[in-house]
Amino acid sequence: MLVIALDPPFGPSGEYSGLKIVEETSAYAVSYKVGLPLVLESGPEVIRAIKETSGKRVIVDFKLADIGDIMVRVLRKLAESGANAVIAHGFVGVGDGVEKLVEEARMLGVDVILVTAMSHRGSRKYLDKHFEELLADALELGVHGVVVPATRPWLIERARKAVKDELKIYAPGVGVQGAEPGSALCAGADYEIVGRYIVRSPDPGKIAREVYEAQLRSVRTCRG
Amino acid sequence: MLVIALDPPFGPSGEYSGLKIVEETSAYAVSYKVGLPLVLESGPEVIRAIKETSGKRVIVDFKLADIGDIMVRVLRKLAESGANAVIAHGFVGVGDGVEKLVEEARMLGVDVILVTAMSHRGSRKYLDKHFEELLADALELGVHGVVVPATRPWLIERARKAVKDELKIYAPGVGVQGAEPGSALCAGADYEIVGRYIVRSPDPGKIAREVYEAQLRSVRTCRG
Repeated sequence: MLVIALDPPFGPSGEYSGLKIVEETSAYAVSYKVGLPLVLESGPEVIRAIKETSGKRVIVDFKLADIGDIMVRVLRKLAESGANAVIAHGFVGVGDGVEKLVEEARMLGVDVILVTAMSHRGSRKYLDKHFEELLADALELGVHGVVVPATRPWLIERARKAVKDELKIYAPGVGVQGAEPGSALCAGADYEIVGRYIVRSPDPGKIAREVYEAQLRSVRTCRG
Repeated sequence: MLVIALDPPFGPSGEYSGLKIVEETSAYAVSYKVGLPLVLESGPEVIRAIKETSGKRVIVDFKLADIGDIMVRVLRKLAESGANAVIAHGFVGVGDGVEKLVEEARMLGVDVILVTAMSHRGSRKYLDKHFEELLADALELGVHGVVVPATRPWLIERARKAVKDELKIYAPGVGVQGAEPGSALCAGADYEIVGRYIVRSPDPGKIAREVYEAQLRSVRTCRG
């Protein structure tokens, strides 16, 4: 249920390595999410290192938003580097766009997760206006999952109704951005993504365990 | 007027290096655009290598589309690697979004170019519906420029009317994607971005010169 976002800096003042965080937290995470900040610092090799250290899946979150040909090229490199899933923006649209990524990913055995709304305020002006359409695209494309922010649980409820059990829902925004651990799960998400709250802590392993236990308690309460 | 997009493969069968293309074409390019495919292959160091080989500016086109904090982190790394400009998606919106990138870029002396429409068919479903609003955001944020596809010159005409001389207009889609060299300049763009047509050619220097001369001829004709 817990996906840990490995965005540097790691530790309160950047004194830890990403792999140290992975070692200490892997008992509580189902997968790790890495983005451009870490990959630009450490190279795409870091993807395989995280997999091997943790034994868990790695989701590469570049929020791809380019024409299909470019996204395919990036995907191939990420697949070669061991990525299990990639996150892309659904708003790029179908037509030499996101469907090319999805087709190639299917051939390569990589899952695609589409952003349908984001956790920051700016999401309201454009993205949120197309939330239902983006969910419908994700269903039609038959992707693995969608991203819906934990900071707005009513969107998660709407997403769950729309996608039923066909897609996984990943919810970022738990911790520093304000959502309580377990709150998105109770609203219908499959996974909560937690970054800074864990990775900037002086004791990431302890915080990861606390988040994980808080998730369990919440789910027990809300799902009965 | 000519921006060369350095997306691999280089040469008809990938037999050239990116820097070979740069050496042969730098007389005709005002700047180079690099994206994730090249940076994942060669590391962010490739940015400085292109600048030093060409003496021209480098635009990093990751089509950033994340929350502000993440884009800022990526920007810092790219600035450190020598990037003169970055391309981001305007639809991420303002509010812990694109304005954070713009503020940080201003401090670092890096130009921001916002995507307001794209060259592929998929752009119609979501992006194109917000074209005028995205142009207005770009103006309000005071960025350096906007991306408007050469494949739809009427959008360039509308963009030029909207932004007057306040922003630069970059037009991708010239060459393989279908627009003729010079056509976007005549519609009002400042720069045409050409990729595959030049970089996959057996003789990139010759093709770059031909494109450059075709641009000059077009502009002479249309601007009188």
